[in-house]
Amino acid sequence: MTKVTSEQETTTRDRTRAEQALLAGLVEYGLFVPSEVPGIYGRGVVYEAVLAGFNHFLSQQTREDGACCLHFPPIMPRANLERIGYLESFPHLAGLVFSFEGGDVDHLELLSQLQNGESYAGAVKMTDVVLNSATCQPLYPTLRGKRLPDGGSLFDLVAYCFRREPSHDPIRMQSFRMREHVCLGHPADVRRWRERWLVRAREMFQRIGLKVDEVVANDPFFGRGGRMLATEQRASEAKFEFVLPISSTEAPTAIMSFNYHEDHFTGPYDIRTSDGARAHSACLGIGIERIAIALFKTHGFDPETWPASVRAHLGLSGKPRPEGTPGGDAA
Amino acid sequence: MTKVTSEQETTTRDRTRAEQALLAGLVEYGLFVPSEVPGIYGRGVVYEAVLAGFNHFLSQQTREDGACCLHFPPIMPRANLERIGYLESFPHLAGLVFSFEGGDVDHLELLSQLQNGESYAGAVKMTDVVLNSATCQPLYPTLRGKRLPDGGSLFDLVAYCFRREPSHDPIRMQSFRMREHVCLGHPADVRRWRERWLVRAREMFQRIGLKVDEVVANDPFFGRGGRMLATEQRASEAKFEFVLPISSTEAPTAIMSFNYHEDHFTGPYDIRTSDGARAHSACLGIGIERIAIALFKTHGFDPETWPASVRAHLGLSGKPRPEGTPGGDAA
Repeated sequence: MTKVTSEQETTTRDRTRAEQALLAGLVEYGLFVPSEVPGIYGRGVVYEAVLAGFNHFLSQQTREDGACCLHFPPIMPRANLERIGYLESFPHLAGLVFSFEGGDVDHLELLSQLQNGESYAGAVKMTDVVLNSATCQPLYPTLRGKRLPDGGSLFDLVAYCFRREPSHDPIRMQSFRMREHVCLGHPADVRRWRERWLVRAREMFQRIGLKVDEVVANDPFFGRGGRMLATEQRASEAKFEFVLPISSTEAPTAIMSFNYHEDHFTGPYDIRTSDGARAHSACLGIGIERIAIALFKTHGFDPETWPASVRAHLGLSGKPRPEGTPGGDAA
Repeated sequence: MTKVTSEQETTTRDRTRAEQALLAGLVEYGLFVPSEVPGIYGRGVVYEAVLAGFNHFLSQQTREDGACCLHFPPIMPRANLERIGYLESFPHLAGLVFSFEGGDVDHLELLSQLQNGESYAGAVKMTDVVLNSATCQPLYPTLRGKRLPDGGSLFDLVAYCFRREPSHDPIRMQSFRMREHVCLGHPADVRRWRERWLVRAREMFQRIGLKVDEVVANDPFFGRGGRMLATEQRASEAKFEFVLPISSTEAPTAIMSFNYHEDHFTGPYDIRTSDGARAHSACLGIGIERIAIALFKTHGFDPETWPASVRAHLGLSGKPRPEGTPGGDAA
C-alpha cells in the first residue's frame, strides 16, 4: 500500500472542507435541495434559470452548426450498454434497472422481507433497461446501418445521465443533465470539427466569466486492466478536458470534455460515411450542471449580483425574476 | 377464465391499430425517435418546443398561485419508496437501481456471464436509489418534521418518472416527464385548492383546443388485494381524472389527475399545519407528455398548421422555428 503523506492528508481535508462549503452555499440559497442520499439533489427555480440561460447561450453560439437536436429520457435499452462494452470498462458506474414480475405469493414474500428489514433483492428481476451512462449512447442505435451525408452528421443532445459514484462533492452527482455535441463522419470531418471547438470553447467560456484550462485526460476505467487503458488513452490524446477550480482550489474540475471514439460506437452499429467507409465519431460532453455550479462559485450565489455582461449572455438581464415559474419551463 | 367476446376482440384490435397509427405519425414527423425497447423514445426539437410551450402556458395560467418551483432528478432514495408503501400497492411498476460493487475477480465473472449469454443479475447489488415513481414523492422527505405556514403550502414540481409497463401505445411510456402541483395544509385548504382547479382546468384545456371530460378514477393497485383498494378509492372519490381520446377513440386517456392523499405522505414524514395538526396533502398530476401528444393528435403533426389562438397560447406564434436549437433549451 502507498503511504499517505501528511501533505496529502491536508489536501484531502481542505478539499472536503471546500466541497462542504460549496454545498452549504447552494443549499442556503435554495439552489440545491438535498436528499438522504449523497449526489441526488432537487434544484430550485434560480438554479434552473441559470442552467436554462447557459443552454440558451450555447444554442445561440452554435446555431450556425445546424446540428440535429434530440432529447433523450434517463433510461435506455440494456442492450446498448452491453454492445458498446460499457460493462467491460466502467462496470462500477453503471445503473441497471430491476423490477418485480411476480404474483400475489411472491409479493407477500417481498413485503415480509421488507417488514423484517431483510434484503428483497432476490424478489426483483433484471429488466431490459438501464440508466443512461452518457448522453450520446442512446444516439448510436438510432443510426444503425445508416450512411451519413457528405461531410458527416452533427447532433446536439441532452439527457439525464447516471454515474454510481456517491459523493458529498456537489459537482459529482449520481444523476445529472449532460449536453453533448456529437460529430460522425470521416476522420478528417471529425478533426475539422474538433479544431473549430478548440478555438471557440475558450472564447465562449470567457464571455461568461469562466477561465478554463485545457488538459489531456483519461476516463475512470475500472480495475487493474483499466490503468493500462487510461495510459493508452492519454498517450493518444483521445480525450481532453476544459477544467477550472470549482469545489476545490487544488484539483480543477472538468466542465467540458472532448472524446474521440474512432469506431468504438459506429462499429457495433455499422454506421458508414457517404462513400461506404466505416464512420468515426467524437463527442463534446458539455457538463451543463457543473457549468451552472461554476457560475455560482465564480460570480456568487445570487445571479442578481453577477456582472451585467454575464447576465446579458445568459439572458438573465432585462426581465424581472418570475416568481412561481420554473426556470427552464420544459425542465 | 372470462371468455373474450368477439366485440372485445375487435375493440382491442382497433385500439392497437389506432396506437400504431399514432406512433407511426409521431416517428414520421421526427417528434419521437424509437428505441429497441417499447415505451422509451428520444424526442425531436418540435416536440420539445410544444412541451416547453405548454409548460410556459401552464406557468402563466398559475403564476398568481405563488407556488414554490422545484425540479427533481429521475432517481430518489430507495427509503422514500419504502416509507410511503409504494411496494405494497404498486410493486409491479417500481424500478430499483442495481450496481456492480465487486473487484477484479467478480468483474471477470460478470464479463464471462455476459459473453456466454448468461444472466449476470447475480453480479450486481441493490443500491439505495430507485427511479422516481411520481414527481411529488421526492418532495415529502424535504419537509420532514416541518410546520407549514398558515393557509398551507403550494409546490410546482417537475421530474422524469418511471413506470414498468412496457407498451407500444405512445401515451404509455416507461420514462416520461410529469409536472405536479402539490397542496399541503388543513383539509379545508386542500378542498379550496381542489375547487379552484376544477373551475380553471377545463377552461385552460379549452384555450388550447382540448375538450376534456372529468371522471372518477382509481390507481392501478397490484394483485388481489388491490381490487379492494381500487373500489374503496372510487367510493371515496379520492382520485379523479381529466380525460380525452388520444391513442384510441374508445378508451379515453387521462392527461391530468387529482389525487387526495389525506395523511398518506405527510404521516411518515410528520408534516404538520401551523397549529400543529397533522397536515393533509393532495396533488394535481399534469401529464405534460400526454398533453403534448394530445395536441399533436388533435391539431395535426405539424404545429405550423395549428389554429392561431392555440399557437399564441403556447408561445409558438410570431417567431420562426429556430433550426438547430433545442426546443426547451433546459431540457
